Amino acid sequence: MTGSRVSEKTIGIKAVAAHAGVSQTTVSHVLNETPHTRVSEETAARVRAAAEELGYRPNRLARGLRTQASDMIGLLTEEIATTPHAGRIILGAQEEASRRNLTLAIINSELNPDPEVDASQVQAFLDRQADGIIYATVFHDVIDAPENLRMRPAALIGARDSAGTIPAVLPDERGGAASVVDMLVARGHRRIAFAESADDVPATRGRLQGYLDGMARAGLSTEGLIASGGSDARGGYDATLELLDREPTALFCYNDRMAMGAYRAAADRGLRIPDDLSVVGFDDQAPLPESLFPALTTVALPHYEMGAWAVAALAESIRGAHDAASAAVPPTVLDCPLVERDSVAPPRRRAVA
Amino acid sequence: MTGSRVSEKTIGIKAVAAHAGVSQTTVSHVLNETPHTRVSEETAARVRAAAEELGYRPNRLARGLRTQASDMIGLLTEEIATTPHAGRIILGAQEEASRRNLTLAIINSELNPDPEVDASQVQAFLDRQADGIIYATVFHDVIDAPENLRMRPAALIGARDSAGTIPAVLPDERGGAASVVDMLVARGHRRIAFAESADDVPATRGRLQGYLDGMARAGLSTEGLIASGGSDARGGYDATLELLDREPTALFCYNDRMAMGAYRAAADRGLRIPDDLSVVGFDDQAPLPESLFPALTTVALPHYEMGAWAVAALAESIRGAHDAASAAVPPTVLDCPLVERDSVAPPRRRAVA
Repeated sequence: MTGSRVSEKTIGIKAVAAHAGVSQTTVSHVLNETPHTRVSEETAARVRAAAEELGYRPNRLARGLRTQASDMIGLLTEEIATTPHAGRIILGAQEEASRRNLTLAIINSELNPDPEVDASQVQAFLDRQADGIIYATVFHDVIDAPENLRMRPAALIGARDSAGTIPAVLPDERGGAASVVDMLVARGHRRIAFAESADDVPATRGRLQGYLDGMARAGLSTEGLIASGGSDARGGYDATLELLDREPTALFCYNDRMAMGAYRAAADRGLRIPDDLSVVGFDDQAPLPESLFPALTTVALPHYEMGAWAVAALAESIRGAHDAASAAVPPTVLDCPLVERDSVAPPRRRAVA
Repeated sequence: MTGSRVSEKTIGIKAVAAHAGVSQTTVSHVLNETPHTRVSEETAARVRAAAEELGYRPNRLARGLRTQASDMIGLLTEEIATTPHAGRIILGAQEEASRRNLTLAIINSELNPDPEVDASQVQAFLDRQADGIIYATVFHDVIDAPENLRMRPAALIGARDSAGTIPAVLPDERGGAASVVDMLVARGHRRIAFAESADDVPATRGRLQGYLDGMARAGLSTEGLIASGGSDARGGYDATLELLDREPTALFCYNDRMAMGAYRAAADRGLRIPDDLSVVGFDDQAPLPESLFPALTTVALPHYEMGAWAVAALAESIRGAHDAASAAVPPTVLDCPLVERDSVAPPRRRAVA
């Protein structure tokens, strides 16, 4: 082992004290800037110079002990193994954490279909003295937060808590879906079908409701224009075949996977996209939209922004009064923006027989 | 604020000491099980009972300070925002960390095309007293690890370090690709084409070499059977059109996105999959393989296993001699297993003219 591989750990207070010719207590007072101690400016300068020369790095744990704050946020999410979305939540959360000098830890990634956050996971995290917890979910609208989640700063992504006291951020799926209809109407479409999901998740209800809002806003009938299928390519294929009998000029699918199935159904019926049928998805789930031909117009979920928002909300909590209790606050709702690509065109004029 | 919302922080050593009628030092000795201190069994029992009654939770930071270990591992990965693979690495790493009572922190997610790990990110993490760092990359075969990465236990995923002293785990892409050819040959194929990627990444070379290994092993010519394209659906479409002129019976694509483009090219030429053309991808990148029709046979990357391996390797390092230096060790190479779905069939007998 070469001499250059000196362990970081040996440059501690003891070495600095020896180098500066003072006691360890003095070094501690100077480097921790302990108030009300009698250390002369000259001695303090000598200690700081010694620390600098030796490459002393403060032991965060020591500071943590003193202030009882670990600068750490735990992220609890079910999505991590199942969708690429978790990556965007983590990226947004981590970049915001980095800006605020917080550490982001992943504490659990298992699917948790139970509406109640697993209290034992939260407790394990409290033992690690995390300053706050972010809980992200796609499966629930509303959760019942256990007591120990309330005892620390917390933030929710994708759901709100029943008591309404935990800061929460939600995607405006309903508004995003309505904006799809607005856009299609603006392009001239009137017979706009919707391939809805059969899944029992909040997004199913939100996106259907947004479609209905948009159609109502434009004074358009939805009769016979809604079909249901599994939220995958096969489900989209089946629902689309059913809908094509009603000759829509545009088809809005619950998600991009269903839209992929819609493309195949259209091809099977000899219809070209977008000339004969405009198609819109939802999720902007890479790599699908760019891999389809033509590239799919869709709606993006603000996962990055939600991750960043949750960390910012927690940081405010943590660095505020350390008081986990707060008045009821309404959830923050973030826009789901349209991502326009190549699968929408004005409806073709039908030849009059 | 209601009385039930007592902060976790107030149940500390001081409260336990008061409740048990002993000094704080005694409490500390008992709860930390400090050896060689004179505390009677009776007193120790009283202290433990007091701690239990008050719901005392050990302050991990205090223990960390005593042993200079924070039980925390940092994960540094470029992939997190770009592919779903990072989710599998994180899941594998986090579940292994959980089993070993370690905390997994995400420290950086930005794309880093530089072959040298950003030293400032590592230093920031050392300041947080992480016990070890995992660096995961798809862009490099070999990295030059900076000195400060060597001063702590570290593990690499997807690359090895030039000095060969940092434990590393790599996917056996070459072997996985060769097994695709073996499987196609076993099904009766002889004219097996390869749509290679134009990207300058290690996987490009590994997968091409595996294809060549498999073909050589079977004594088959590759002449005119390799075409290059971008590693996306469009690139796969273009490369496949080129290759179809050579009438292969099977097409192996560098990745699933190129395979999606291959499906479209086959359809444009009136070829059915798998009856007229077998197609195989690589990556098992959800949601593509299951969304394609027929569902795509492909090769999976062991991201979960690599994440878990890296944490296990780090845990051994951390809980061993705390010595970051080690003899040169060859990288661990994990299998890339075939995932057989519906896109492969024996070649059709060609009608003799």
